[in-house]
Amino acid sequence: MGDEVVESREWYLAGYSTEGVPTSDHLKLRTVSLSLADDSIPDNHLAVETLLLSVDPYLRGRITGTSEGLFISQYQLNQVITVFAVVRVIRSKDSKYSEGDILLNPNAPVAEYSIVPSSQITRKIDTSNGISLSDYLGSLGVPGFAAWVGIEVLADPKPGSNVFISAASGAVGINAGQLAKIRGCRVIGSTGSDDKVKLIKEEFGYDDGFNYNKESDFDAALSKYFPDGIDVYFDNVGGEMLEAVLNHVNKHARIPLCGMISQYNKVWTEREGVRNLLNMVGKQVRMEGFMLESYWHRFGDFAKDMEKYLQEGKVKSKNKINIGIEGFLESLNSLFSSSNIGKVVVQVKA
Amino acid sequence: MGDEVVESREWYLAGYSTEGVPTSDHLKLRTVSLSLADDSIPDNHLAVETLLLSVDPYLRGRITGTSEGLFISQYQLNQVITVFAVVRVIRSKDSKYSEGDILLNPNAPVAEYSIVPSSQITRKIDTSNGISLSDYLGSLGVPGFAAWVGIEVLADPKPGSNVFISAASGAVGINAGQLAKIRGCRVIGSTGSDDKVKLIKEEFGYDDGFNYNKESDFDAALSKYFPDGIDVYFDNVGGEMLEAVLNHVNKHARIPLCGMISQYNKVWTEREGVRNLLNMVGKQVRMEGFMLESYWHRFGDFAKDMEKYLQEGKVKSKNKINIGIEGFLESLNSLFSSSNIGKVVVQVKA
Repeated sequence: MGDEVVESREWYLAGYSTEGVPTSDHLKLRTVSLSLADDSIPDNHLAVETLLLSVDPYLRGRITGTSEGLFISQYQLNQVITVFAVVRVIRSKDSKYSEGDILLNPNAPVAEYSIVPSSQITRKIDTSNGISLSDYLGSLGVPGFAAWVGIEVLADPKPGSNVFISAASGAVGINAGQLAKIRGCRVIGSTGSDDKVKLIKEEFGYDDGFNYNKESDFDAALSKYFPDGIDVYFDNVGGEMLEAVLNHVNKHARIPLCGMISQYNKVWTEREGVRNLLNMVGKQVRMEGFMLESYWHRFGDFAKDMEKYLQEGKVKSKNKINIGIEGFLESLNSLFSSSNIGKVVVQVKA
Repeated sequence: MGDEVVESREWYLAGYSTEGVPTSDHLKLRTVSLSLADDSIPDNHLAVETLLLSVDPYLRGRITGTSEGLFISQYQLNQVITVFAVVRVIRSKDSKYSEGDILLNPNAPVAEYSIVPSSQITRKIDTSNGISLSDYLGSLGVPGFAAWVGIEVLADPKPGSNVFISAASGAVGINAGQLAKIRGCRVIGSTGSDDKVKLIKEEFGYDDGFNYNKESDFDAALSKYFPDGIDVYFDNVGGEMLEAVLNHVNKHARIPLCGMISQYNKVWTEREGVRNLLNMVGKQVRMEGFMLESYWHRFGDFAKDMEKYLQEGKVKSKNKINIGIEGFLESLNSLFSSSNIGKVVVQVKA
């Protein structure tokens, strides 16, 4: 591989997108030449090939070009975008890593090949423990950790608590529901199709669920599914559903705000206003937004729990693997449609 | 006083009021005859005359006839209404209390005279400690305790934190601002007139303040007064101001929701929707509603702090004493106008 130059396809930011779903006006694919020759790789850097890319809703917040909402750092115009990824080492200039090692990079270029500082790597994956590589981006990755922080750290529900999870068949929802069941809660989910309702009940242990597209009146639906009120609402959607929930909360209910997928593609003045926050006073509700950046010190606790649950079959994973880096934009947009189930991963190389 | 019968004026609920300020259609004054004769008073009861009645915004929530918003127990039609009050014993059938004792009754009939179970009494007032009786309903009563729970328990601000308090010249706001100053915070208040802005700065130690009636754009006002963002928002008003605050919150900001006086006189579907709750995710904001019922176990800690602050002059009180039980309704409605400053008390008897 001495003076090897590779053609590497990569996705870059062509323009910010404040409203609607991102299109090929905003994210574009290009091909660059990259030298993987030994003298092209600085000390403490790695040349890697990308195996799997994590596709998550929060990425939408990185291409708005505005400083509100998720308040996360914006991708730079004309630069390659970055995501969580599983990568394999081609050449290493760090003695901790060797050719063939499979690593997690939370800040990996969405590219077929890249040269990255080894300090970015957060984990070397043991491929002998029976856990699939895509699970490191799903139940053991961003969505699983988000589910764990929301349920274990913020909601901390008692056995028997009534737990409601929106976007229940999404990557976060599937994990959150299963973690709440492990806690002994009664868990109800909302999701976007009858098939997905069936799935969360039959495969992921939800006690019940409903298709929000079929409910013209969320209030009535929640009355039906929560005759004893809601103790925990794990909010992945915001907007109208959050408002409806606030009419059904029990005293001291907790609402971890993980994300608001119904609201990401709108400028804030066009978002749905929540009119009944006064209920939070009388019911003494705690609502708390969270981002994983504040919880990395708990990642070890999470990973230990979750690996055990996966190995014991107490948590089942569901990963939708889309083949080919060229489909990254389509995969991202699938998160905002009702079609998505579980964790969306783009497989760049097997 | 052997067989004395008194004429006692009292306010009773004539009809529920879901919208707008309550009127004489909803709360009415009547005169009843009450025997204070020895054999009219059951064991473990007290005959008392009312000295001071506490007038608080939450009372609005007790005459809506609906189970939402503050979710507090509703007054019963045709029955005398009840509030916090300072009363004086006329005749006692409980050996713990004697004629002339001055007591706090959190559930006192809004009446000139009443016979109440002694178990209702929460405190016998020591009149020799230099604290005025009305302060027991103000800085040492419901509003002072609410301020203390919001600042000390829920917000728990660090020295130098940027604290914003709405309804800053109201009974709760005055105490909350002073408690935040004692903590070493920078404290800004919003209130409804230039005079009240002057008052909170000159008398109550606020660093600055603004008249919300003069600000057409709350966002711009908050940009001006919080160039470094808001760490704590003690919310007494809800609605439009809460939405504006969410555009200025710092990471990990805390928002104790004490009440939402701008929203009490509206049915919930007519209330102002808050459209930017998504900011709570990115900024990891904790918003928490509270009611004093959950914090009575801390009342002793509060009272110890607050008595000391009052005696040392670190907290100044401001009580508006309206003379005569006949003015109770007018006093209640004054809370919902811009005219009110400090704690509103109705003096029934000197």
